[in-house]
Amino acid sequence: MSSTTPNARVLFNAIPQGVPIPGETTVYDSSPTIDLENHPLNGGFLVKTLLLSIDPGMRSRMRNPEEKSFAPAYPIGEPLAGFGIGVVLRSENPDVAVGQYLQGGGFLYQQYYVLPSLPSAMLFLDRHPDVPLTTYVGALGLPGKAAWAGWKEFSNAQKGDTVFVPSGASAVCSMVIQLAKLEGLKVIASAGSEEKVDFLRKLGVDVAFNYKTVDTRGVLEREGPIDICWDIVGGDVLNAALDNAAVGARFLKCGQMTILNKVGSHALIIENPMAIFGKSVSIHIMSSPVHIPKHLAEFNRTVPVALIDGTLVSSPEDVRHGLECVGEMIRAVQSGETKGKVIVVVGEAA
Amino acid sequence: MSSTTPNARVLFNAIPQGVPIPGETTVYDSSPTIDLENHPLNGGFLVKTLLLSIDPGMRSRMRNPEEKSFAPAYPIGEPLAGFGIGVVLRSENPDVAVGQYLQGGGFLYQQYYVLPSLPSAMLFLDRHPDVPLTTYVGALGLPGKAAWAGWKEFSNAQKGDTVFVPSGASAVCSMVIQLAKLEGLKVIASAGSEEKVDFLRKLGVDVAFNYKTVDTRGVLEREGPIDICWDIVGGDVLNAALDNAAVGARFLKCGQMTILNKVGSHALIIENPMAIFGKSVSIHIMSSPVHIPKHLAEFNRTVPVALIDGTLVSSPEDVRHGLECVGEMIRAVQSGETKGKVIVVVGEAA
Repeated sequence: MSSTTPNARVLFNAIPQGVPIPGETTVYDSSPTIDLENHPLNGGFLVKTLLLSIDPGMRSRMRNPEEKSFAPAYPIGEPLAGFGIGVVLRSENPDVAVGQYLQGGGFLYQQYYVLPSLPSAMLFLDRHPDVPLTTYVGALGLPGKAAWAGWKEFSNAQKGDTVFVPSGASAVCSMVIQLAKLEGLKVIASAGSEEKVDFLRKLGVDVAFNYKTVDTRGVLEREGPIDICWDIVGGDVLNAALDNAAVGARFLKCGQMTILNKVGSHALIIENPMAIFGKSVSIHIMSSPVHIPKHLAEFNRTVPVALIDGTLVSSPEDVRHGLECVGEMIRAVQSGETKGKVIVVVGEAA
Repeated sequence: MSSTTPNARVLFNAIPQGVPIPGETTVYDSSPTIDLENHPLNGGFLVKTLLLSIDPGMRSRMRNPEEKSFAPAYPIGEPLAGFGIGVVLRSENPDVAVGQYLQGGGFLYQQYYVLPSLPSAMLFLDRHPDVPLTTYVGALGLPGKAAWAGWKEFSNAQKGDTVFVPSGASAVCSMVIQLAKLEGLKVIASAGSEEKVDFLRKLGVDVAFNYKTVDTRGVLEREGPIDICWDIVGGDVLNAALDNAAVGARFLKCGQMTILNKVGSHALIIENPMAIFGKSVSIHIMSSPVHIPKHLAEFNRTVPVALIDGTLVSSPEDVRHGLECVGEMIRAVQSGETKGKVIVVVGEAA
């Protein structure tokens, strides 16, 4: 007996100029179907997508494939790919069992699909019963691990340091802020809404402000100099922070949102390098996958327990439903309009 | 009895656009005189200038004083200042004795002058009888110390690393190259003349080339990827090196010549940051005075002896005579036309 099930997906349709436009940069395609019981596996396994993350970093893959970058460009006409959680429905692969949860990168923005083997970016997920599944996309997913590994590897945090975290309410940055506060450091952090600024205060941020209504440079001149800056923003914010750096400051960069949404050059521009030469500033342009493995065991020992006992808290989540909202949420993430980590529920575990 | 002696000097005359122009940016002034025996000291001491260095970094001080930078801007109409060696002719300061040699920064580009006390950038020089005085401006002066301290602090050199040193025949860079070769690393280095390329080969450079006749990017694509880059050049060379960086590469920057001689923006521009995000590259924008103190004792134990026994060699010197050539030599240094570290002999020790 055979029956077909809808198998919707989100396709990459055109390289955006500036901020991605729903329906133009990406299109929602509800036409495909799949026979879940009989679709051939050819030795592979069938994944059901449960959750998908709408990450800032997806923007970097929406480019001309001839431009070099760390993650491959999305092919036009193919489904988007990124971070998520799924469950195995059927398997002919001896390493992958039915019912196993999968976590990580390499998920397609599609309800169901067959993989020949586990992609290197995907891990089996041992779910803790007291932790919501969405947490494995945020604090226990790539954002949390990226924050942990980057901080351990490069912050060189010293007693008395002042830390600046622009765009601090994101999943990555809120973890960084909490690690800094656990070490007793002074934290300055900004966010784009009063609601997010309140969240920053709950995390213990010493100087929390709304960057849409308060001048970042002025705050840093009053509250700096800055010993550690975790910057995912770039542009004027990065330059204001560099101009207010302390001698020996460490800048940890794991993204560059303002650059990618700018039409034209994507160069990283340091406006006043001569002022920095006097301070001996180190800028670490981090690739999380390079550093996570070294720090993963400590992360796994520490963070899940800390989230359950409340020592650490997850960043706000903005949970949506259905692949049809992906295009709009990509736009909203790139525009800084979201209320927290955007997670799209694509399917429910049986 | 009183008698006057000529006391020539070189004045900063106008902020240059691009490369400094002799006679316009700086002017030689032979009109002043001084009475060496009777000039009042007011509790200070009288210095006779012996050697002055023409450093690439002097360019950064030839700017509008409102532009922030690590070293103060030269005031218009005042003598230039920088690195050199002098001897004390007379003293009313109990900490400074007649006949003592002085070494370091804070020297005026003038034959004689009175200082109230020892500037923080100036040190007493214990001259080793087997070491020429000019060596204390190069390998045993700021260039050698800057190379030593930066390398020890930031290179994190590992067995098997490949090191790239553009403009490698300079006093700073030739010390870096030798430290890398002492650790058994593969070194790629460039220079602007065949004579300098020969010197690089004598230092043991594995891949030495003339950047005026050979394309840097092509060499790095063949001989990289690069684990450590010591860059005083910036611009296209820096970007070619970043594009050929290995995962985890360390970039050590202690200057930015191409930027300062460019008319218009002095920004440091990283053309393709997204490609770097995949590699996790650290860029250390170093200020030598910050790091030298920590590493100075080891430098003093190691480098003078190594220069005498031949384990280390000095970079080529381009020794000139008389303050009247300072303007032209500043232009030549900024244009990369010199044959080695430019040292101007201003006076002879009695």
